[in-house]
Order: sequence, then structure tokens, then C-alpha cells
Amino acid sequence: MIKNILFDIDDTLFPTTEFSSLARKNALNAMIGMGLDACYDDLNHRLNAIIHTKGSNYQKHFDVLCRELHMRNPARYVAAAIAAYHDTKTAIQPFPTVPLTLLKLRQSRHRLYVATNGNPTKQWDKLIRLRIGLYFEDVFVSEEVGSEKGPAFYRKVLKAIGAKPAECVMVGDREDVDIWPAKEIGMHTVRMLAGRHIAIPTRADASIRDISELPAVLHHL
Amino acid sequence: MIKNILFDIDDTLFPTTEFSSLARKNALNAMIGMGLDACYDDLNHRLNAIIHTKGSNYQKHFDVLCRELHMRNPARYVAAAIAAYHDTKTAIQPFPTVPLTLLKLRQSRHRLYVATNGNPTKQWDKLIRLRIGLYFEDVFVSEEVGSEKGPAFYRKVLKAIGAKPAECVMVGDREDVDIWPAKEIGMHTVRMLAGRHIAIPTRADASIRDISELPAVLHHL
Repeated sequence: MIKNILFDIDDTLFPTTEFSSLARKNALNAMIGMGLDACYDDLNHRLNAIIHTKGSNYQKHFDVLCRELHMRNPARYVAAAIAAYHDTKTAIQPFPTVPLTLLKLRQSRHRLYVATNGNPTKQWDKLIRLRIGLYFEDVFVSEEVGSEKGPAFYRKVLKAIGAKPAECVMVGDREDVDIWPAKEIGMHTVRMLAGRHIAIPTRADASIRDISELPAVLHHL
Repeated sequence: MIKNILFDIDDTLFPTTEFSSLARKNALNAMIGMGLDACYDDLNHRLNAIIHTKGSNYQKHFDVLCRELHMRNPARYVAAAIAAYHDTKTAIQPFPTVPLTLLKLRQSRHRLYVATNGNPTKQWDKLIRLRIGLYFEDVFVSEEVGSEKGPAFYRKVLKAIGAKPAECVMVGDREDVDIWPAKEIGMHTVRMLAGRHIAIPTRADASIRDISELPAVLHHL
């Protein structure tokens, strides 16, 4: 009998891949709107290379881009890019069926949790922007828990909530951090098919394309 | 004959003092809305003390506040505070008569500049949010210029724009960084009476309570 549901955030509760790509597009267009004399495709190509090299959590992508273009006073372009990027991030929306599904799961007496990698303040910012933070009993973020999402992380989370693996299901889009380590310690698993990892095959107990399928799937685990 | 007008940003082009105070209020209320069991007045008292000690440009006011309250997992409260703070900052508006006045001054063939202390990206962010960035020929921010607003700063700015002091007026709300150093090097000066320095007496050539008074004032300098 499943009592506890653990959710990943990115590409599980909201379309992260889509919003990131839109945020970058809006940022580059804002630089052009501020008078930067460059073509969008060239900027986009450079930005993707910078993100690839520096990682997506690096804070100075647009500064590096301006440096590559040898700009003398880049602040106006960096500020325009960051403002547009943040405005897009501020407007993130959950997958449309998420709020109602979370409410139904609360009504069916399930206890809901978040289990996510990353920085606690950044991950909480998403829950606040998505306006779903209050649905969860607790939120476990790797930096606070003290390990990235692997078997040890899930053991610590289950200990903290006082639950056995067989009473819990992990719902997430990534095979490597959501499905296999949860499965490894004996939890149930549901793979969300969304985002840039969508094509990777799954060993999860079930897979869904929309979170609204979850209540029905729980009955068969 | 005045050809060039230099504007300060904070409390000259938009009501900075008012928005900062609103942003902090919204941030504290968001922490309470997230379930923080504390009273607003106590939080506000603590936050003001932290801002006083750490300075207003410090990035971790809300983290320190949570530490003072001995919270174990503060990320949700910090994230709620920061989101509300940023949402307020994102919504900054110029003093109502600013856009039309800038447009009129452009039509009367004046060249408009910004001269401001601070971080270039943060100051540009304000111009972008206020949607007035494109009115200015150039923007001079102390960190880029290489000195804080004093006589040397204004000398560098005038050299960069190729103007003599007598052809320029500085418009700002602060006697110490806007009026006296500009006056010191022979520029005209107009004091904007707004914000938390409003009561400090002025030696400026003229003072105004609304930026729309500026075109008329220019004729008498």
C-alpha cells in the first residue's frame, strides 16, 4: 500500500527544458533589442557553446558572451539579457494537470514530498513560482540532505519521513537519478516521459506522459 | 547654453526609497505566508538591523535573518522572500512625468546621460525595468568609470562626452555625490527633492520636486 509519493521537480512538475530554452531565446533577443549588432543565430550558437563548457548553473553566461564579442561596456546587454531571462523564469507554469492532481492525491490521504537535486533556495523558488509549495509535507534538496540523488539520498529521505521503501513511490523524468537509485533501495518507481531525457529507456514500474495518470497507476503498483 | 544633462537614477528617475521599503515588506510577508511563525514587526526590526550592519548591497539579508531565528531548513523562507523582493523590484516604475520629460528634452536637442554610483549591471537593470534606457546617449556607472561620484568622476565623464562644465547640468537627489562635486568642477546643478535625503539643505543652482519642472529651470541657469 503506497502512502508516500516523492516527486522530482524539473521536467516532472513543470516543463523545465521548454522554459530554459525560451528564457535563453528571450535573453538573446533582449540584447539585440538593446542595440547589440549581432545576428540571433550566431549569438545562440555561442551561448550554447558557453553553457556546454561552463555548465547550466554557471551565473555569468552573458558576461562571457559579451567578452567573446569584445564589447567595451557590456553592462547594458548583460542587464537586458538577465532581465528577460528572469522575467521568463518568473512566469514558469506547472504542467497543466499538476495542481489538480496534487490536490486529489492529498484528498486520497497520500503524503506528498519533493526529492530533487540542486540548491535549496533555487528549487524552492520554483515551487513558489509554480504556486504548489504548500501541497508538500516536506521538500528534500540534495544540498540540504548532504548527498546527490542516489541510493544513500533516498535512504536518508525515507528515514526522515519514517517510511519503508515498499510504502513509497518516486516519480521523476530521469532514469539515472530518479528511477534506478529509488528502485535499488526497494521503492516503487514511475517514470515521467517529458523533457530532454524522454528517449532514454526505462526500468520503472510504470511510465506516464501526464501527471494526471498517476492516481490510476498507483492502484496497479 | 546647456547642451548636456546628466541624471542620477535612484530617487531622481524613480522612487527608490519607496520601492525598497515595499520590497522588504513584501518579502517579510511572503515568509509569513510560507508558514513562518513570527510577527511582522519583529521580523522587520531584525531585518532593518541586518541591513544597517551588512549594508544594503549585501546579498544574504534573508539568510542571516533565518539564521538569527535558528531555522533548520530555511530555503523555503529565503526563496519566498527573494521571489517577493524580486517581483517588487521587477515592477519598479519611473516617477510619472519622467518618460515624457526625457522625450521633450530630446526634442529640444539636449543630450541626455546617466551618471550613477554602483554596479553597472544593477544600474542598467533599473533603466531597463523603467523602460527609459534608450533615451540616453550614454550611461556612466562608477564601477565602470573607475571612481565613485566625486570631482574626478565628473571630470572623466565630461572628458568622455567631450563637453565643458558650463555646457552641462547634473540632476540628482544627493547633495554629497550629485550636487557638490559637480558644482566643484564648474557644472550647473539641479537638486531633485525626493527620497530619504530630502531634508538635507542644498547649494544647487535650482531645486525641483518633479522632473517635469526641469525644462523651464534650464532656461534660468
